[in-house]
Amino acid sequence: MPVFPARDLLAQLEWRYAVKEFDPRQRIPADSWDALEQCLVLAPSSFGLQPWRFLVLTDPGQRAELVEHSWGQRQVADCSHFVVFAAPTNLGPESVDTLADHTAKVRSVPSASLDDFRELVKDFLDAFDPETRVAWATRQIYLALGQFITSAAVLGIDTCPMEGFSPPDYDRLLGLTEQNLTAVVCCAAGYRKDSDKYAALPKVRFPREQVMRRL
Amino acid sequence: MPVFPARDLLAQLEWRYAVKEFDPRQRIPADSWDALEQCLVLAPSSFGLQPWRFLVLTDPGQRAELVEHSWGQRQVADCSHFVVFAAPTNLGPESVDTLADHTAKVRSVPSASLDDFRELVKDFLDAFDPETRVAWATRQIYLALGQFITSAAVLGIDTCPMEGFSPPDYDRLLGLTEQNLTAVVCCAAGYRKDSDKYAALPKVRFPREQVMRRL
Repeated sequence: MPVFPARDLLAQLEWRYAVKEFDPRQRIPADSWDALEQCLVLAPSSFGLQPWRFLVLTDPGQRAELVEHSWGQRQVADCSHFVVFAAPTNLGPESVDTLADHTAKVRSVPSASLDDFRELVKDFLDAFDPETRVAWATRQIYLALGQFITSAAVLGIDTCPMEGFSPPDYDRLLGLTEQNLTAVVCCAAGYRKDSDKYAALPKVRFPREQVMRRL
Repeated sequence: MPVFPARDLLAQLEWRYAVKEFDPRQRIPADSWDALEQCLVLAPSSFGLQPWRFLVLTDPGQRAELVEHSWGQRQVADCSHFVVFAAPTNLGPESVDTLADHTAKVRSVPSASLDDFRELVKDFLDAFDPETRVAWATRQIYLALGQFITSAAVLGIDTCPMEGFSPPDYDRLLGLTEQNLTAVVCCAAGYRKDSDKYAALPKVRFPREQVMRRL
């Protein structure tokens, strides 16, 4: 028996859309936001490497300042919680050791039992140049973003994923560069305004038989 | 009031792990699979462009053949439904027109009312070389993969996302190249075997305060 009724899940995914106008007066309750943060922490990633940082922006002044670096999109300022997804620019062997050491601790196994794993993942990253590593981390981050958006939808929380912003400006204004991070995608979360005309528009999706092939 | 209790959502995300051993005798019921296909169709993408094809592999012979091109991972053959996520290699102005034409039809608006949208998205893609377009499509696909994995988890269905395969071999064996597609990531879905020792291992995640910053 499914844990959630499939019908309800689909209803929430139909209900979801990329919000254009957030209601700035409506805040996500602390317990719901706490759950969404945990959804991000629990997101899967290749090798379990978690090559990401999630920056939660709540300061109104800072968010207002970011609007002009976000193609003028008001969602940055008007949503309840604004998340900047950042990729490490220094992903490398130390990242693998950090994960392996943490794994040994969490699973109470000798660190040496993870030597094959260390070697495998280090070799994997080693084959990439720095730019390709950021690209790989970014793909993992989009997967986490997918988990975030879907989780929010099943909790009845609105979102708007955003690629339309200037990463160099974000990196500078949020002090990311000196932390070896770079902003790769964002997501506004909160509640739609009743007046958002996009909420009522029919969802546009290609017919299933067009995007799906059964072999 | 949240649509699903946050506690139940988190329990499902904790329950989820990357399955190593699927029970080959357990199949996903048709109605649940149908819902998961719809979750993929409903996945969000930048500009709503849906730059993807989802190939659902059910033929046992074909899947057995793919194992050796998948780092020997048995999940390809043993899971219930195996999905190959493919990106278009010919994303361009025609893709934008296809979407705009479809949008006009779905929303019953004149095609010309979408001219600004057409221009915006065409200019956006135009700034990319073909390789960068595939990379952009791939990020959208990872977001869809995130929606798929999270949706499966809330339905109590196991998954294993897989980057470990040979795209050129998949493209050749599945006839993707001649359809202007390329395999970018895969996901096995089904049910874990009771004997899968990875199911019981504590989940390894960096502490929340390490991956999350509140600004």
